[in-house]
Amino acid sequence: MRHEFSGIVEEVGEGIDDVKPGDRVAVQPIIYDGTCGACKDGFINCCDKNGFIGLSGWGGGVSEHVVVPRYAVYHIPENISLEVGALVEPLAVAWHAVKISPLKKGDSVLVLGGGPIGLAVVQTLKAKGAEKIIVSEVASRRRDFAKQFGADYVLDPTKDDIVAKVREICEGKGANVAFDCAGVQAGLDQAILSIRARGTLVNIAVWEKSATIIPNHFAFRERIYMGIATYVEGDFQEVIGAIASGSLKPETMITKKIKMEEVEEEGYKTLINDKENQVKVLIEINP
Amino acid sequence: MRHEFSGIVEEVGEGIDDVKPGDRVAVQPIIYDGTCGACKDGFINCCDKNGFIGLSGWGGGVSEHVVVPRYAVYHIPENISLEVGALVEPLAVAWHAVKISPLKKGDSVLVLGGGPIGLAVVQTLKAKGAEKIIVSEVASRRRDFAKQFGADYVLDPTKDDIVAKVREICEGKGANVAFDCAGVQAGLDQAILSIRARGTLVNIAVWEKSATIIPNHFAFRERIYMGIATYVEGDFQEVIGAIASGSLKPETMITKKIKMEEVEEEGYKTLINDKENQVKVLIEINP
Repeated sequence: MRHEFSGIVEEVGEGIDDVKPGDRVAVQPIIYDGTCGACKDGFINCCDKNGFIGLSGWGGGVSEHVVVPRYAVYHIPENISLEVGALVEPLAVAWHAVKISPLKKGDSVLVLGGGPIGLAVVQTLKAKGAEKIIVSEVASRRRDFAKQFGADYVLDPTKDDIVAKVREICEGKGANVAFDCAGVQAGLDQAILSIRARGTLVNIAVWEKSATIIPNHFAFRERIYMGIATYVEGDFQEVIGAIASGSLKPETMITKKIKMEEVEEEGYKTLINDKENQVKVLIEINP
Repeated sequence: MRHEFSGIVEEVGEGIDDVKPGDRVAVQPIIYDGTCGACKDGFINCCDKNGFIGLSGWGGGVSEHVVVPRYAVYHIPENISLEVGALVEPLAVAWHAVKISPLKKGDSVLVLGGGPIGLAVVQTLKAKGAEKIIVSEVASRRRDFAKQFGADYVLDPTKDDIVAKVREICEGKGANVAFDCAGVQAGLDQAILSIRARGTLVNIAVWEKSATIIPNHFAFRERIYMGIATYVEGDFQEVIGAIASGSLKPETMITKKIKMEEVEEEGYKTLINDKENQVKVLIEINP
């Protein structure tokens, strides 16, 4: 919550002439060292000392003022509200994952998990021309959200045989690509067997622990597993462009708006106790 | 041993006019059903009912005569001996793995395991222009073989800190690509951490059991894991071409030649009791 934010520029530092007070901007919160191997190769999202404004320090979205470097700021056009601007960050995670995956127009896709990132992936897949979008999600309210954002099929892993259903939907072959936005062992097991020969499983989830795989399930079908970390240069711009042009319509991801003084009761506690009915809770600062 | 073979054509079936008695051929032993999803997509090596001539049935290399379908037969040119022709199969496994990996000329590569497939990978990497080839292998004799076939660095995982050494050799970043030709947990753990951000670990090994991974090691560095199965159309032709042109020189992989009647004592028992000193044992039929 704290690293996903937008705002209005109040002051700019010396030498900055392409951003001015009053500009409406979304913040790309990656903190990187610029000196490690990954940074030298241009992958600041894979930095050895990677952090996030609002998670690792440097203030963040739950404050009246925040100072960020020039690289962190992206202008948002007139037709995008500041509220939707705060959704650019989670959408950029999904956009990046779909973009560097081998997804082609017309592909069949399995998405594990209908939380905020899963729903952002569904919207991105729709915008990128995926043909069959299948979401596997335990909570019925989240399956409804998934449908609303573009899923063609929703499955309940506590009741449906995911592997069999996905194969059936996908010409008996399985999905071309799967996105793991859940990060649990049972889902991983299902996703591997649900993708076809040469298919790819993209992991976006942050896992809390280790996982078990059967390497022969990858070898005998030449399947691929890709790890994905946040976003790189280009992703924020493309997401802002897609929202501006209407190919992404994420407004309804904001299921609740609260004020700064309500953060504890109406914010964190809502996300703990009413998780299923919420996608994103927006905190309005000085509304 | 039994699915890696070459021979001289004795008879051809009706309608076959591009192979004739007396032709010298190498055998591509994949058995496939032609009807499953993988076969329909052209990946017969990923067939749901995949088998191998010599392993799953249909005779094989340890016999005086064998009947194989037309698709299984590849001509070998004058300047390649029948003996070397029997090495085309294991070389094709390595060739296929390197070819569909993201390896680029000048890349740094870690190879886990200096057995026959590991050594075939080393030769292929050399032929494809890898710059730094690092082999991690427990047995000292196999490390010597690895050097002989083109490894630039050989490491002993029982003594060397593989992750630190590979990083040091590879500009502080790690390898671009790693090939797992060993199939053991300790090697997998080392290989994942030895590849740089956006690097790829290619699994060629047939694992006997499940493996543990830390998904965040893939996610936070956007690493990729690829499973590879044998070979596809094109690989046998390219390996034969590379041997004919001299860019692959695999002759010395044959460390012992035996006769049919010696298969048990000099063949299987040698590979059990003298594994470290052997790469490939060739069985001569009617020499």
